[in-house]
Amino acid sequence: MTKGLELKSIEGGICAPVGFKAAAVACGLKRSGELDLCLMAADNRCAAAGTFTTNAFKAAPVLVTTRHLEGGHLRAAVVNAGNANACTGERGLRDAESMAGIAARELGIEAQEVAVASTGVIGRYLEMEKIEEGIVEAARRLDAGGGGEAARAIMTTDTRPKEVALDCGGFTLGGMAKGAGMIKPDMATMLAFLTTDAQVETALLSRALREVVEKTFNRITVDGCTSTNDMVLCMAGGASGYRPSEEELKTCLLEACSRLARAIVLDGEGATRFVTVRVYGAADGGEAKTAAMAVADSPLVKTAVFGGDPNWGRVAQAVGAALKGIDPHEVCVDICGIRAMEKGAPAEPFGDIEAAVAGREVVFEVGLGRGGSEAEVWTCDLSYDYVRINAEYHT
Amino acid sequence: MTKGLELKSIEGGICAPVGFKAAAVACGLKRSGELDLCLMAADNRCAAAGTFTTNAFKAAPVLVTTRHLEGGHLRAAVVNAGNANACTGERGLRDAESMAGIAARELGIEAQEVAVASTGVIGRYLEMEKIEEGIVEAARRLDAGGGGEAARAIMTTDTRPKEVALDCGGFTLGGMAKGAGMIKPDMATMLAFLTTDAQVETALLSRALREVVEKTFNRITVDGCTSTNDMVLCMAGGASGYRPSEEELKTCLLEACSRLARAIVLDGEGATRFVTVRVYGAADGGEAKTAAMAVADSPLVKTAVFGGDPNWGRVAQAVGAALKGIDPHEVCVDICGIRAMEKGAPAEPFGDIEAAVAGREVVFEVGLGRGGSEAEVWTCDLSYDYVRINAEYHT
Repeated sequence: MTKGLELKSIEGGICAPVGFKAAAVACGLKRSGELDLCLMAADNRCAAAGTFTTNAFKAAPVLVTTRHLEGGHLRAAVVNAGNANACTGERGLRDAESMAGIAARELGIEAQEVAVASTGVIGRYLEMEKIEEGIVEAARRLDAGGGGEAARAIMTTDTRPKEVALDCGGFTLGGMAKGAGMIKPDMATMLAFLTTDAQVETALLSRALREVVEKTFNRITVDGCTSTNDMVLCMAGGASGYRPSEEELKTCLLEACSRLARAIVLDGEGATRFVTVRVYGAADGGEAKTAAMAVADSPLVKTAVFGGDPNWGRVAQAVGAALKGIDPHEVCVDICGIRAMEKGAPAEPFGDIEAAVAGREVVFEVGLGRGGSEAEVWTCDLSYDYVRINAEYHT
Repeated sequence: MTKGLELKSIEGGICAPVGFKAAAVACGLKRSGELDLCLMAADNRCAAAGTFTTNAFKAAPVLVTTRHLEGGHLRAAVVNAGNANACTGERGLRDAESMAGIAARELGIEAQEVAVASTGVIGRYLEMEKIEEGIVEAARRLDAGGGGEAARAIMTTDTRPKEVALDCGGFTLGGMAKGAGMIKPDMATMLAFLTTDAQVETALLSRALREVVEKTFNRITVDGCTSTNDMVLCMAGGASGYRPSEEELKTCLLEACSRLARAIVLDGEGATRFVTVRVYGAADGGEAKTAAMAVADSPLVKTAVFGGDPNWGRVAQAVGAALKGIDPHEVCVDICGIRAMEKGAPAEPFGDIEAAVAGREVVFEVGLGRGGSEAEVWTCDLSYDYVRINAEYHT
C-alpha cells in the first residue's frame, strides 16, 4: 500500500462517490420477475476505461462499449441480466446500439457516452420493447441511493450482490460486480463497474485499471470457462476535486477489485470453500500462472476439496500435466501450511492435513524449484450444486 | 477398413489369442476386498510396444516399463489396482522393479521381460508383502481362461470390466482396459493391454500402436485430467503363424482400441450420455483438436448435456475461448444433425433440438470455416455422480 494512504470501508457501492446515481427495474427479462435492468449515470462527463473478454465470440454489448470507449469518456451505463445478447449477429449489434441510444435519449446525452453490458443466456435476441420500457422507467427513478438495487439487478446465478465502497482519503471509490459461473477471466471477467469522484485522466485510469485487473479479476477461476460478456468498466467523475497520484489510484483500485474478485469466488456456483493456489519457484510468471490455473481448474482437485480430502496427488497430477517438462524431483506441495509432498515423494513426517482442509479456506502452495517467479490464483470447490445449477439453467 | 479383411467379434479378452494366460487375485490393496492384482503371461517371447502418459509426474511403473520395453520384447505383465505407485520417489521405483523381479522369479524369466503397471491412489507406497503374496498366487493359477478376472482386477472406479476380442481372419487380437476418471489421454491414458497371436516385428507393432492410439485413446476425455499412470501395452506372440500386413494390423488394432476407448467414456465417472464433438473446417489438425477438446472439457457444456439442455451458446463460448483469433461470423454449430448456430447467430428456422438431446448419444458438430482439417473427440456428461465419486474417493 502507498505510504500514508489510509483506506476505509464505507457503506454503499457505485453511488458512494459524489456525482453518481443509479436505478434498477424489473422489466421482464428474468422469468423470476426479479430486478433485471439497471441504469447508472454520472452528473459529470467521466474519464472512463474498460477491459473486456478475449473470447472470440465477443457479445454485442462488448463490441459496442469498446467502440464507445474510444473517446475516453462516458456519462452512463445501462446493464441488463437474463440475456447475454451474445452470438446474435448483426441484429444483436443493432439491439446493443439501441440500448445505448434509448438511454442517451432519456438522459439527454450522446449515445456514444453510454456503455452497454448484458449477462445471461447466450444465443437469444433481446426483447427490445421490455428493454426500452425498463430504461425509460429507470431513467425517471435515478437516485444517489440506487447503487444497492443496481447491484441486485445485474445478478444471474449469483446468490448475493457484490458491492464495495472505499473512503480513500481525498476521494471515494465504489464498485459492484456480478459473476458466479463461466468464470475464468482472460482480461476481465463477468461484469464489474467501478466509479470514483477522483479527478483522473483517461490514460492514467486505463493504465491503472489494466494493471489492477491483471492482478485481481484475471486471477480467479470458478469453472475454467471464459465468458463472452466479460467487462470491467471504471468511470471517474472528478466531483471530489482530488487528483490522486498514480500510486494512490492503483492502491485503491487494487483493494476494491480484490474484494470484488474474492466475492465472486466466494459466491462461485455451488462453492463451499475458498481455495488459494500459490505457485512459487517458477522459471517465469507465465509458467507460474499456467501451473496455478491448472490446479485451480482441475475437477479432481476441486471435488477433493469439496469432499474435505487433502489429495495432494491430484495437485501434483495437475501440475505435471500442465508443465510436462518439469523435474518431479524438485516439486514440493504444502496444504494449508503443512508439507505434503517433498521433492516428488510423500513428506516425512506427514502432518495432520485432514484437519487443515476441514475449514472454509484451503491453501495449496506448490514449489517448482526452477526459479524466482510466482503466481496466485483464487478458486472454489466443485460441488453437487455446481452441477445442479448448470444442468437446470436452461436456454 | 482394409479391403477383404473381415473382423469378427468373439468371446474373451486378453487370453483370446493363442498363447496367453492370465490370473487375478485379491491381495488386500483394495479396501473392498475385491480382485486387485493380475498377472498375464505369454508362452512365447513377444514383440512388444507401449505408449505412456506425458505427465511430468510419471508413475514408477511407467518409468520401469518404459525401460523394460527398450529391448522390444516382453513375456509377461503384472498389474495392481488400488495404489498408483505415483509420486513415490526412489522407493516407488524400487518397488516397481521388485514387482517385475518377483513375477520374473515365479515365471522363470528375466525381470526385463516383465511390464509393470499400477492404478489407484497417488502418493502412497505399495504394500510389498501383499504384492509379493499376490504375484506368487497368481503365477500358480495362470490359465487361458483368466482374461475375464484380469479385466476385473484392474478396475478402480470403473463400474464394469472392458474387454475386446477380434477374430481378424488369420490371427486373433484381444484386449482389456480400465479407466473412468482422470481421463484425458495425452499419448495414452488409463491402462490398456492388447495381445495378439499374429507374427509382428517390434518396429511395426510400435508404429501401428502409436498411430492407432492417437486416433482412439488420445481422442477421449472424461474430465480433462491427464493421469500419471497412463499406459497402453501391446504384446504379439506369433502363435498363429500368421504375418499380417501393416494395413491389416492397423485396421484390427484400430477396431479394438476404438471399442475400448468408447467403453471407457461410456463408463466415465457418473456418465449418463455419450458425447461426440466433431470440429471441421479448421485451418489444421491441431486447431481442430484444440477446439474439440475445449468443448468436450467444458464443465458448462457437460452439465448442460447432463440436464438435457441443447445449450449451443456454451459450445460457442468454449470454442471462442480456445481459439481467440477466429472469426465468429464463420462459425456454425449443429446438435445431433440440427443446425443451431449459423455464422455466429441463431439458426433460422430453429429445429427441435430439445428432443434430439434427450437420447443417450449427443453429437456436437462445429464448423470453423477456416480450412479443410477436422478432429473428433469423445466424452461424457458431468453429473452429480462425478462429484460424489471424486469427493468420496479419499486418499
